[in-house]
Amino acid sequence: MRDCIAPYTQYSILKLNTDFSLPYRYTFYFCLSIITRRMKRTKIATLLSAPEVNAEVLIKGWVRAFRSNRFIQVNDGSTINNIQAVVDFENFDEAILKRVTTGASVAITGTLVESQGAGQAVEIQVKEVEVLGEANPDEVQKTVMQPKKHSLEFLREQAHLRFRTNTFGAVFRIRHAVSFAIHQYFNNEGFYYLHTPIITGSDAEGAGEMFKVTTFEPNNAPVNEAGEVDYTEDFFGKPVNLTVSGQLEAELGATALGQVYTFGPTFRAENSNTSRHLAEFWMVEPEVAFNDLNDNMDLTEDFLKHICNYVLTNCADDLDFLAKREAEADKAKPAAERNELGLKERLEFVANNDFERITYTRAIEILRNSKPYKKKKFKYEVEWGTDLQSEHERFLVEKEFKKPVIITDYPAYFKAFYMRNNDGCEEGKQTVAAMDVLFPGIGEIVGGSQREERLDVLKQKCADFNIPEEHVWWYLDTRKFGTVPHAGFGLGFERMVMFVTGMSNIRDVIPFPRTPQNAEF
Amino acid sequence: MRDCIAPYTQYSILKLNTDFSLPYRYTFYFCLSIITRRMKRTKIATLLSAPEVNAEVLIKGWVRAFRSNRFIQVNDGSTINNIQAVVDFENFDEAILKRVTTGASVAITGTLVESQGAGQAVEIQVKEVEVLGEANPDEVQKTVMQPKKHSLEFLREQAHLRFRTNTFGAVFRIRHAVSFAIHQYFNNEGFYYLHTPIITGSDAEGAGEMFKVTTFEPNNAPVNEAGEVDYTEDFFGKPVNLTVSGQLEAELGATALGQVYTFGPTFRAENSNTSRHLAEFWMVEPEVAFNDLNDNMDLTEDFLKHICNYVLTNCADDLDFLAKREAEADKAKPAAERNELGLKERLEFVANNDFERITYTRAIEILRNSKPYKKKKFKYEVEWGTDLQSEHERFLVEKEFKKPVIITDYPAYFKAFYMRNNDGCEEGKQTVAAMDVLFPGIGEIVGGSQREERLDVLKQKCADFNIPEEHVWWYLDTRKFGTVPHAGFGLGFERMVMFVTGMSNIRDVIPFPRTPQNAEF
Repeated sequence: MRDCIAPYTQYSILKLNTDFSLPYRYTFYFCLSIITRRMKRTKIATLLSAPEVNAEVLIKGWVRAFRSNRFIQVNDGSTINNIQAVVDFENFDEAILKRVTTGASVAITGTLVESQGAGQAVEIQVKEVEVLGEANPDEVQKTVMQPKKHSLEFLREQAHLRFRTNTFGAVFRIRHAVSFAIHQYFNNEGFYYLHTPIITGSDAEGAGEMFKVTTFEPNNAPVNEAGEVDYTEDFFGKPVNLTVSGQLEAELGATALGQVYTFGPTFRAENSNTSRHLAEFWMVEPEVAFNDLNDNMDLTEDFLKHICNYVLTNCADDLDFLAKREAEADKAKPAAERNELGLKERLEFVANNDFERITYTRAIEILRNSKPYKKKKFKYEVEWGTDLQSEHERFLVEKEFKKPVIITDYPAYFKAFYMRNNDGCEEGKQTVAAMDVLFPGIGEIVGGSQREERLDVLKQKCADFNIPEEHVWWYLDTRKFGTVPHAGFGLGFERMVMFVTGMSNIRDVIPFPRTPQNAEF
Repeated sequence: MRDCIAPYTQYSILKLNTDFSLPYRYTFYFCLSIITRRMKRTKIATLLSAPEVNAEVLIKGWVRAFRSNRFIQVNDGSTINNIQAVVDFENFDEAILKRVTTGASVAITGTLVESQGAGQAVEIQVKEVEVLGEANPDEVQKTVMQPKKHSLEFLREQAHLRFRTNTFGAVFRIRHAVSFAIHQYFNNEGFYYLHTPIITGSDAEGAGEMFKVTTFEPNNAPVNEAGEVDYTEDFFGKPVNLTVSGQLEAELGATALGQVYTFGPTFRAENSNTSRHLAEFWMVEPEVAFNDLNDNMDLTEDFLKHICNYVLTNCADDLDFLAKREAEADKAKPAAERNELGLKERLEFVANNDFERITYTRAIEILRNSKPYKKKKFKYEVEWGTDLQSEHERFLVEKEFKKPVIITDYPAYFKAFYMRNNDGCEEGKQTVAAMDVLFPGIGEIVGGSQREERLDVLKQKCADFNIPEEHVWWYLDTRKFGTVPHAGFGLGFERMVMFVTGMSNIRDVIPFPRTPQNAEF
């Protein structure tokens, strides 16, 4: 499988000057191979960021292109940038160079020199090329590796290979950076990462349809004497689901450890085939004892700004590439659909501007005084007591304030049972200390609240929401024993990655998207 | 719910000198309350690590104990250490102090002073105590919050409250530290965090029994004309499971991005009720292009040492507590079951010593020449071609080498299909480039291998292991297009947390353990 292509010159000299018998020639190859093996591989990111001109280097990666039988573009995933390796093709066996095709993997040794051409500062003058693995050009042509414009749909069908494209290399390196920024932020702030359960018997959140988890064969589950499914025979002895949120368990942690966060997969079995929904997605849920709604907003804003700053600082090359990609794509769009700010400017804007904070009641007032309302351009009613629709949120974020907006103090009845009832509300106008953070182009990116810490009020809310107390006895216990004010929020991690990469379909920011009728790879 | 206990002295003075009408007294409370609210709360960890003597401070937390109507021990989760708040009880209303009981939550303002008593450097001279939430002592007595020795079984039944104990506070703070050390290590080394799918249609790993995921009602799934379950009607249009490993998907990432790691939940539906198994646990799976088995061992060793060093440096107080706890528990055990080294010494030992690296073949030789073998003390046979049992691994790690041991190059047929066949094996003695890392007291903590990168060999292995190629077409594609040598491993995260905390039951190092017949909370 491995073949060694020695530079033809050296090989010729050997042939010209000596009459090596076979064993000697093997020794020569063996030595070369030893050298290659003993040389430490340098990552391309390192080569390009701190180039040591005239150094002998060994790189390993995949061929992105091979032009004029001379210029090999190699990428190893450490950066979006390729290194150019220049072959003196007259001295290489042409038959062997033919195996250096797009998608093939290679190990290249040579000297790092200042580049003669435009487009790169340094390049490698090749001494040896080893083809580690070939890639049949006829087959490559059918894949996303073929260097040409592919539709995102086609790239999704080949999710196993799309990591090898510039766009998805950039997206998944940035996804990593966002993850790390999150862990770093919370660690620095003294939070503890809490792994809340994925399989759960609890259905208190009421956040949506759930997936069942079982070891039963469908249509072959044991039944009891009454003919009902006998769950005592199932693995956990009762019906269980995939979690929709780790929040309730996070509250258990926060009311002892003070500050915790979750960062894990969550699930919704909702049949919604949109560009903003996944059946399996990652959520970040911090929860802080002694925080009220204002503290919660401060935390959210600081946290989201940290992520933007981190990506701006640490992902410049990938961000540049995605910004150019977006600007190109925008040209083909009608003016109204184009981004007003470029990708990096949007991140800088979030990092440098205070979020607008308004109550739901104020939002309704603004909307009812707005032009689109008066011109009857809104499809949905705007009235105190009805939830805000996407068109309303977009108006507030993209037209009225032109910045991230936090809407607080929503009517209680369309928010979750655990949100804290505000004091002193008018009869019939009970609000809760909830907050939704809306981002331009994305919509709701964070939802949170101060939690109801008063046992008697919480019990009443359980009753109002038809949640039997015996289902949440453990949750109620935190209010029974030394209850404290506390607050938290949930960040849809993929939505944040969409925002920082400018990708407009959520399926393009998670490695292997799970959606209705799709669980490939 | 909130009550304000003003120091009795001030209250008395007010009463003596004036004849305040009710509104004035309210104003007084209101002002006090404003002061409390405007003061910034200091975390106890900060107070104790950098004490500013004579500063006015506000702390919030839970009462761990209240002795002699004078010394309130408060903990806020930021550290295992309590702060002592000293009340001048003659000047406090006794009826109100009675509400300051174990488990109650309090906000305390006062002056930080050097401690008069032994056991702490500083303490708070209390000015004001606000009881945020009471805790009924009769009820508390039935919980793990009652400050006395509880069995770990009892603590597990109250997993929702065990965060409030010293032991579990320490365990879960350290669990966080280990998580962060992992992310930090890989980020520093240029790895990308890859979120591999939790719900998967792939069953290639063959790692064990899987949980089914469905939206079907049990015994009420639609059937096709042949009377078989019609999976096209299920959410994903086919049978799907919870992942047992993200490795195969990680290889897709590594063969494009170069170096990736997963860190996510994995599942086994195995009915094993042991102290080392969970149905839901977290795995860390790095995968590196261009690495061979030696590189893989170097990476593993460096990585595990980093974790030990990180915990030693960053979790000193929690580690001290757990070390003392273990030493106490050891006293009650027969000498043979005691730990030879203390907890911290074990971490230092791993951090400072090279792991022993031996082949499976050499391990068999050593075992067959050992005393227990000759004295027929081993229960299981020791013969080339049979897998090593726990008793053999323990002998090698705990008796023969007394340090972590990496065993490599196992016979192919009891290892996974994707492990690389070693070259030049004797007929019938095919081995693979596998490695298991064994830790004292824990057993296997890491399993890994160089992967089979040769398409023809891998296809043959699929056939040998009865894996239809059409199930793994996407996996085979990485070998078809520019295949490269690569290697990786899986760390059982909970086993690592067991090692660094000294906890001996895996259910005590994960917040909410999932085991057969148990999915509480």
